[in-house]
Amino acid sequence: MSTGDPRADRRIRRRTASDNVANQAARSEPYRRLVIPFEPMRIFSDDQVETMHRAALRILEEIGVRVLLPEARQRYKAAGASVDEASRMVRIDRGLVEQALRTAPPAFDLVAPAPHRSQHIAQKHLSVIPVGGPPHVTDIERGKRSGTLEDFRNFAKLSQQYDVIHFLGACIEPQDIPPEFRHLETMLAMLTLGDKAPFIYGRGGPQVRDCFEMVRINAGLSESQFKAQPHSYTVINTNSPLQLDIPMSQGIIDFAAAGQLSIITPFTLAGAMAPITLPGALTQAHAEALAGITLAQIVRAGAPVSYGGFTSNVDMKSGAPAFGTPEYVKAAFGAGQLARHINLPWRSSNVNASNIADAQAAYESEMSLWGAIMGGCNILIHGAGWLEGGLAASYEKFILDVEMLQMFAELFRPVPFSEDEIGVEAIVEAGPGGHFFGTAHTMARYEKAFYTPLVSDWRNFGAWTEDGAKTATERANGLWKKVLKEFVAPAKDPAVTEALESFVARRRSEGGAPPVS
Amino acid sequence: MSTGDPRADRRIRRRTASDNVANQAARSEPYRRLVIPFEPMRIFSDDQVETMHRAALRILEEIGVRVLLPEARQRYKAAGASVDEASRMVRIDRGLVEQALRTAPPAFDLVAPAPHRSQHIAQKHLSVIPVGGPPHVTDIERGKRSGTLEDFRNFAKLSQQYDVIHFLGACIEPQDIPPEFRHLETMLAMLTLGDKAPFIYGRGGPQVRDCFEMVRINAGLSESQFKAQPHSYTVINTNSPLQLDIPMSQGIIDFAAAGQLSIITPFTLAGAMAPITLPGALTQAHAEALAGITLAQIVRAGAPVSYGGFTSNVDMKSGAPAFGTPEYVKAAFGAGQLARHINLPWRSSNVNASNIADAQAAYESEMSLWGAIMGGCNILIHGAGWLEGGLAASYEKFILDVEMLQMFAELFRPVPFSEDEIGVEAIVEAGPGGHFFGTAHTMARYEKAFYTPLVSDWRNFGAWTEDGAKTATERANGLWKKVLKEFVAPAKDPAVTEALESFVARRRSEGGAPPVS
Repeated sequence: MSTGDPRADRRIRRRTASDNVANQAARSEPYRRLVIPFEPMRIFSDDQVETMHRAALRILEEIGVRVLLPEARQRYKAAGASVDEASRMVRIDRGLVEQALRTAPPAFDLVAPAPHRSQHIAQKHLSVIPVGGPPHVTDIERGKRSGTLEDFRNFAKLSQQYDVIHFLGACIEPQDIPPEFRHLETMLAMLTLGDKAPFIYGRGGPQVRDCFEMVRINAGLSESQFKAQPHSYTVINTNSPLQLDIPMSQGIIDFAAAGQLSIITPFTLAGAMAPITLPGALTQAHAEALAGITLAQIVRAGAPVSYGGFTSNVDMKSGAPAFGTPEYVKAAFGAGQLARHINLPWRSSNVNASNIADAQAAYESEMSLWGAIMGGCNILIHGAGWLEGGLAASYEKFILDVEMLQMFAELFRPVPFSEDEIGVEAIVEAGPGGHFFGTAHTMARYEKAFYTPLVSDWRNFGAWTEDGAKTATERANGLWKKVLKEFVAPAKDPAVTEALESFVARRRSEGGAPPVS
Repeated sequence: MSTGDPRADRRIRRRTASDNVANQAARSEPYRRLVIPFEPMRIFSDDQVETMHRAALRILEEIGVRVLLPEARQRYKAAGASVDEASRMVRIDRGLVEQALRTAPPAFDLVAPAPHRSQHIAQKHLSVIPVGGPPHVTDIERGKRSGTLEDFRNFAKLSQQYDVIHFLGACIEPQDIPPEFRHLETMLAMLTLGDKAPFIYGRGGPQVRDCFEMVRINAGLSESQFKAQPHSYTVINTNSPLQLDIPMSQGIIDFAAAGQLSIITPFTLAGAMAPITLPGALTQAHAEALAGITLAQIVRAGAPVSYGGFTSNVDMKSGAPAFGTPEYVKAAFGAGQLARHINLPWRSSNVNASNIADAQAAYESEMSLWGAIMGGCNILIHGAGWLEGGLAASYEKFILDVEMLQMFAELFRPVPFSEDEIGVEAIVEAGPGGHFFGTAHTMARYEKAFYTPLVSDWRNFGAWTEDGAKTATERANGLWKKVLKEFVAPAKDPAVTEALESFVARRRSEGGAPPVS
């Protein structure tokens, strides 16, 4: 590029040669605190939202929820719910739900090991969590395979690396680690590789207690300090329709008792485990979320919870789940409305059903991202790396997702506005048919004017072809490998690392903690 | 899939075996009339919009626009603008602009050869146009090459095939046809292969007159009938900054005089041919659009025009244009606000800067699509097939774009809402932990419940792998070839086809009409 102005040319050349990493760092700061500046989309009228809310209350009163954990049924019963021990059905009257909604906090901070990584969870604020849960990992060189601890550590590093990812996450299941040790090794990886708030699976009390203990050791907190604020989070999936299993019920109880965050998310596929209609699927999900939220508030009034929305549809020909569909976007908008109706932070997701990190993966992800963000999402799960309907975590998709997320983060930044910003004098300076590269207005702003992409390639066809004609997915492959190669974990007191390692060694020697099911 | 209910299983099997094409046809009807149900996004306050509007008026009054066509300068002058013949600068006072905005219609119909293809152009309504303008075409088998008339005909067929594409378009430049005959051959292709409203390039009076004549012959219209309503459209790109060249000025005059639609679109890349700031680039584009709109209304008060918005940014390191960026989305939201401020239909675009129909092409397209649609777009140009910053039209991208567009069309459909839709009885019927495949509520709705995708593959990894592990782009390759192979043009009176062909033969024998530049 030549500006026609030798001085400007020099500046631009200097910038071309400048340290791209430093430049990125200068712009990455805002990604740590995302505030959505747009009014959330609505697909339902206020009356319709109220109708769904009332229908959900009626479902809880008249049908109820099957709760498999005896302790949970006892707690519901003690709070005034009607419990039938034979059928394990818990019927919850609306007064109890309304009481829970009065004590559930609409806003709170999730405290991270590094203070600048703590996140405010509240309306308009957005926090992003990486992929969680797949048993498999995939990349374009090695293909699909079982997840390992090395993969988990790699995804933890990638999650730590990018500021637009705000918590650490479940990422993948390390299947080379026996289930009774898995929570120990994954927590050790999160706490030693990163300084963002960690995820804990609700797989029974013993595992959860181990993980809480490690979080306390890591942050040097007393038990009461730990319980005073959320320092970790879990995701509670109801077994739709209308069922709460043992580990999930236990998780709600354990997290509420410890003041830690439960993201209570019915996973309702319309036409499969929920009514085929959007109002039906959302109403059922709402009822299930209210049941979980109520249990949390029964255990501890004021326990931090998030209202999870995860409603999509299935292919009615094959029964295959679909994600990022038009119906998914509508469900996201509707779930966001229901969350705001009960004034709780709303969790949504970045999802797709593609088997490979291709154009389908990208457009389905974009649909779910826009659905979440225009719906007013506060916690975005599966923010980066989710593929194949959640059956695989993809290294390349992780990078592509970070790019998409960063583009949203930039979209959220306010547009400076003033007469000087309009710059009529620059238009005069350029003149009809002229150019703006060298105008003073441009020179004062060009360094930080625009988003610098991570993986998008804007070079012309010739330059792109000479460089190997790589697809975005192939370029993403190079990027994640570079990040992993150059990764440096945040500095940490060696004594803390040692304490965490010796805790893990002790608990392993004691047999760990098998997951509860 | 088994529902556990033999009767339901039979029904589902029958549907699985049923005619997929018929099923798609049943759902495609709504794509012909798109109404955006969402409130448009705003990134500027009303005051800021008014400030940009006033700054644009000041630019037109104080700097003016360089107009290269003498006839256009004369028309501006006769209407009261201040014209300097030496510099060819036309200064337009705000009274003249405001008069033009009073006569420019906020809504009108673009009449198509087939009445059911006519489109209402107005706020909330959305019409989609295919890619327009690339000199090259590309597909994943043959790669990038110069466009030919056969390619133009292929893109016309693809544009005709899908209901979510509402007009025919410029598609690609058929470089195997001499420029003086190109308008004749492309118009003949559009009018014989399709029944949607055609595009005409503003490349000088002689070409435009030929094309108008062919549209009249095709529809059997007298000259006064033709002029009474728009039956064709053009796109006017100003030469930013602040310049209107000869063919563009002539195009505005010719289209306005004939009552045909001009989509007046400054193409402003912030930092290159417009100020680097969003308010600056939009203000300059607004001034340029107002200059063109004013000329159209001077020529004929009430001439149909659309306010075109095409503001993006460049990579400040290389000068390369970028599309579908965060800045692009903000510019789209802002341009939509400016269009509504002057109460004119707003044109936006579906664009990307990728060199191949990959994940980048998809996510950049999605960003520009959401920018357009959430910004309240009324005419979407480059709706399908645009690649490589507009330098190539891609067969595969066309199909991927149709999929994305159809997903939006489905998103726009209202959600039925009633107590019956919620279906508490279905939730009772399924029971806790049960399933909904076989419920009466599902069976009554499953056939048309959800969008059936064109190219998205939701099968599991095993089935997908056995079928060749194709990417979405590879599947799109199979789809466009199938459409072209099976394409049947709408039925047409052979006498009309003969009349069009003999018009083209005569004009070719007369030497055609070289483009004016």
